[in-house]
Amino acid sequence: MTKSQKKTNPTKLKKFVSEIFLFYGFSKTHALLCAEVLVEADLRGIDSHGIARLEGYVRLIENKRINPNPNFSWVKNKGAVATLNADSAIGLVSAPFAMKEAIKKAKKYGCGFVSIQNSNHFGIAGYHAELASKNELIGLAMTNASPLVSPPGTNKRMLGTNPIAIAIPNPHFSKYPFLLDMATSAAANGKLEIAQREGKQIPKGWISMDGEDSTDPFALKEGASLLPLGSDLEHGSHKGFGLSAFVDIFTGVLSGANFGPWVPPFVAFLDPLPNLPGKGLGHFVGAWNPDFFGDKNDFFNQMKIWSNEFSNAPKSSEQGVIIPGQPEFTQREKRLVEGIFLNDIIYESLVSLAQKTNLKFNI
Amino acid sequence: MTKSQKKTNPTKLKKFVSEIFLFYGFSKTHALLCAEVLVEADLRGIDSHGIARLEGYVRLIENKRINPNPNFSWVKNKGAVATLNADSAIGLVSAPFAMKEAIKKAKKYGCGFVSIQNSNHFGIAGYHAELASKNELIGLAMTNASPLVSPPGTNKRMLGTNPIAIAIPNPHFSKYPFLLDMATSAAANGKLEIAQREGKQIPKGWISMDGEDSTDPFALKEGASLLPLGSDLEHGSHKGFGLSAFVDIFTGVLSGANFGPWVPPFVAFLDPLPNLPGKGLGHFVGAWNPDFFGDKNDFFNQMKIWSNEFSNAPKSSEQGVIIPGQPEFTQREKRLVEGIFLNDIIYESLVSLAQKTNLKFNI
Repeated sequence: MTKSQKKTNPTKLKKFVSEIFLFYGFSKTHALLCAEVLVEADLRGIDSHGIARLEGYVRLIENKRINPNPNFSWVKNKGAVATLNADSAIGLVSAPFAMKEAIKKAKKYGCGFVSIQNSNHFGIAGYHAELASKNELIGLAMTNASPLVSPPGTNKRMLGTNPIAIAIPNPHFSKYPFLLDMATSAAANGKLEIAQREGKQIPKGWISMDGEDSTDPFALKEGASLLPLGSDLEHGSHKGFGLSAFVDIFTGVLSGANFGPWVPPFVAFLDPLPNLPGKGLGHFVGAWNPDFFGDKNDFFNQMKIWSNEFSNAPKSSEQGVIIPGQPEFTQREKRLVEGIFLNDIIYESLVSLAQKTNLKFNI
Repeated sequence: MTKSQKKTNPTKLKKFVSEIFLFYGFSKTHALLCAEVLVEADLRGIDSHGIARLEGYVRLIENKRINPNPNFSWVKNKGAVATLNADSAIGLVSAPFAMKEAIKKAKKYGCGFVSIQNSNHFGIAGYHAELASKNELIGLAMTNASPLVSPPGTNKRMLGTNPIAIAIPNPHFSKYPFLLDMATSAAANGKLEIAQREGKQIPKGWISMDGEDSTDPFALKEGASLLPLGSDLEHGSHKGFGLSAFVDIFTGVLSGANFGPWVPPFVAFLDPLPNLPGKGLGHFVGAWNPDFFGDKNDFFNQMKIWSNEFSNAPKSSEQGVIIPGQPEFTQREKRLVEGIFLNDIIYESLVSLAQKTNLKFNI
C-alpha cells in the first residue's frame, strides 16, 4: 500500500478523532459529536470539511479561540424562535444543540428557528439540516465564515463562502433526504484544494485577483478573492452576492455575532480584527413541519412524484438530472463498504496530532 | 412627443389598471391591490412584471383560469404556519392575503409561514416580501412559474424562473429595506425582453438550445431553455438548479399546488398539462420577527453598520457595492417625480384593452 492509499474505516477514524477532542478538554458527548460530524463529511466525499480541518480546530483550541467547555445560554427564547450564545463553542456542537431546540419548536408550532452567536466553524452545513429531516421536518442550516468573497463592485474580501443547506425528507423515494448544501460562492474551497493537489489550473470565474479572473488555484493565498455564484454581473453575480449577504445577515446580524469582513478568520495565525461589532461567528438553523402545512404523508407522496419526474427526465448527459445530495450519499454508501482513503497531507496531520497528544494512532 | 415616449404617472396608471380588473369582475379592494402591485413593478423599473402583463392576465380571466371572485379557504391553519387554497385567484391578491396571516403569526410566535395552492402568477415577489419589512419583520416570498428552465443533465424545461425575495427592514440606514428579489435562473425574462426590443444578442450562459449555448434572445420562443444561475456545471449551475428546486418544493409540493413541468403556463393559449398532480400554481410567503431573536433596535443598528460597511467598501467599479434593492428604489424615486414611460408595445396593449372594455383611456 503506497503512502497515498492509506485507508481507514469510519469507526476507527471516529474513535481517534473523538480522543483528540477529549484530550483537549471536550466532554465525552461533545467529543463524540465532533467526531461524528467530521467523519460524516469524509464519508460523503466532502473531504475539505472533514478530518482535514482537525489540526485547524486544535490550533484554535490552543489559542483559546474555541472553548472546549462551553456554557450555552439563551439570549432570548420566545415562541417559535430563539437566539443562542454558544460561549465560543465549536460550531460542530453548538449547531446541533440549537437545531434540537428548533426541532422541538417545529413539532409544537409548525416551524422553529434559532440564531447562534459567539460560535466557531460548524463543518458541513448539511449535517445540521439533516437532523431535522431525520425528524420528518424540513431543515435549514446556514453559517457565515471567514471573509474570502468579494461582492461585485469591490475587490475587498467581505463575505465567507456562506453556505445554505436545506434538507427535505423524502422517505417514499430514498432513505436519504433531498439535501441541498451549497456555498454561495461560484466555487467552494474544496474544489480549489483538488486543483491545488492535482497541479491544475482552475476555470475563469472562480477567483479574481485585483479585479481580473485568475486561473491559479493558489491565488487565494496571495490575496485574491473568491467570486460569488454567478461569477460576473452578466451571469448574475449580484444574485450570488445577495444570497451570501442574506446568509451573513441571518447568521451574523440577527444573532448578534460578527458579520461581513469582521467574521473571525478560521486560521489561528490570523487574529480577529479589532473593535468587533459582534460576538464570534454566527449560524442560523431551523425547521418547518410538513405535517402542519398539510398531511405529511401527502407531502412525502408528492415528493416521490417530484423526485421521480426529475430523476427520469430525458438525459442530456450520462448521469441525467441529479437530485441534490445524491452524489454525496452515493459516496457515503461506497465508503461505508470500502473505507475512507486518506491523502498524504491529511494522514501526516493525523500522525502529527497523535505524536503531539501521545494518543495511540491505530487507524 | 414621439410614440415611444408616452408618459404617465402612477396615479393615473393605477386608476386605469384597477378599472380593467373591476370590469372583469374583481372586487374594488382586489382591483386596487392588483393595480398597486403592477404599477409598483413599473415604478421600480421591473417593466417585465408590471402592466406589461395586464393583457396576459385578462386572457387568463377570459379563459377562466383566473377566478375574479375567489373564496379563500385554509387547507390547514395551525400554530405558526398555514396553507391557503386560493381558489384560482390571481397571485397579486392571494400572496398579500397569505402574507397578512404570516405577519400576524410572526408577531405572535416570532415567525410565520403560509404556503399557497391553487393560485396564479403573483407579479414581483419583492412586493409581497416587503409587506413584512413594512411591519419591522423580515419577509420571504417565493413562487414557482411556468417551466422554462432546464436543470443540468436534461434539455427538458422543468422549472420556472422561480424567484426568491427577502426583505429586511433597515430603517436606520434607509427608508427602504434590504430587498433581494432574484430569479434563480441565470437571466430573468426581463433581460431577454430588453435584448429582443433592442435587437441585440445575449451573452452565452443564459439560454441553451438542445444543449448548446444560444445568443439569440428569441430562442426561448423556439423551444430553447433558460439556464439555472451558474450557467454551467463548472460555474455552479447545480446550485442554481438546487435553489430553483427548493423554491419549487416549498411553493408547489408543500402547498399541494403543481410543481416542476406541471406548473400551468402563464400564456392563455397553452393549456395546462393533463393529469396534474396538484392545484394551480404555488407560492410560499413568511416572516421572521427580529424582536423575538433579540432586540429589534439592536438589529436595526447592526443592519446600519452592515449596510455602511458594504456601501463604503473600496470601489472596483463606478458604483461600488450595491445593497440589494437599491437600484430599484432609486428608479422608484425617479419615476415618482418624472413619471412612467411606456414603450410602444405596452402602450398599444393598454389602448387595445381600453377599446375592448369601452373604458376611458386617459393616462
